[in-house]
Amino acid sequence: MLTLTAAPLTREAFAPFGDVIQVDDRVESFPINGGNTQRYHDQAQVQILGDNARPIISIFRSQPYRFPISLELLERHPQGSQAFMPINGDRFVVVVAPAGECIRAEDVRAFVTNGQQGVNFHAGVWHHPMLALDRVGDFLVVDRAGDGNNCDERDLPCPMTVSD
Amino acid sequence: MLTLTAAPLTREAFAPFGDVIQVDDRVESFPINGGNTQRYHDQAQVQILGDNARPIISIFRSQPYRFPISLELLERHPQGSQAFMPINGDRFVVVVAPAGECIRAEDVRAFVTNGQQGVNFHAGVWHHPMLALDRVGDFLVVDRAGDGNNCDERDLPCPMTVSD
Repeated sequence: MLTLTAAPLTREAFAPFGDVIQVDDRVESFPINGGNTQRYHDQAQVQILGDNARPIISIFRSQPYRFPISLELLERHPQGSQAFMPINGDRFVVVVAPAGECIRAEDVRAFVTNGQQGVNFHAGVWHHPMLALDRVGDFLVVDRAGDGNNCDERDLPCPMTVSD
Repeated sequence: MLTLTAAPLTREAFAPFGDVIQVDDRVESFPINGGNTQRYHDQAQVQILGDNARPIISIFRSQPYRFPISLELLERHPQGSQAFMPINGDRFVVVVAPAGECIRAEDVRAFVTNGQQGVNFHAGVWHHPMLALDRVGDFLVVDRAGDGNNCDERDLPCPMTVSD
């Protein structure tokens, strides 16, 4: 059994897979509303591809997992990005593999967020379905509605587990 | 001085101004990810108008207000909707007036959220800048980048306060 260790999520480590969404002094930010609010600006590449496509906003409510987590499959959305932001300050686990036709076991990566981070998977990036931790997790989700298939599922090339 | 009372935010009351984003059994929802997750689907009309326009995702960090809140101006975004979802479970105050050239004092409405609700202002709807309560508020924001002016500010026709 291949065991992944969930690494702390950082922009740098996650860059091949998408964007990290968080308050961060290294993000472009500027004051608005007369200085009352700081805007941490334009943090995710929102990709809405294909016919009759539009961005949509939903909430996902996910049942929690506990370490070690058994993994069997990944999914990808070929026609759009998918952003997840926890709305109750909870950490979650992210498992990803690079876009491409073939999932290679040695390229699968696992991360754990710090509770104040969201992620945006780029179109085509393989990722595990939501992995809430600790308790039921609510996530604001920005993804795509439109024509055609936008979800492929594929079994991992071998069973894996994620531990902390 | 005109005093508004912040009413509990509901979909019905907010419908003239935009969308409420929340887990709600009256929203279309369906299970995904093998039943692990319930998707409360497509809750906001994301409007991205004009030239070279695209949806963007940002975080706003806002300093808190306390009741009673003095109001002086509203703003509107003629070329796009703007969605706000609190990411720390905090309530906030929403002050709105109908889209249109003229803000009428008697049409201004105030709402307070329950901490688990977001809002999406439709394009052109007059609204007050973020009004976090209690403590510094972080909000995930989905709005528009693109060419041309997308923010008008206007003084209220008379000073107002919002109380709870």
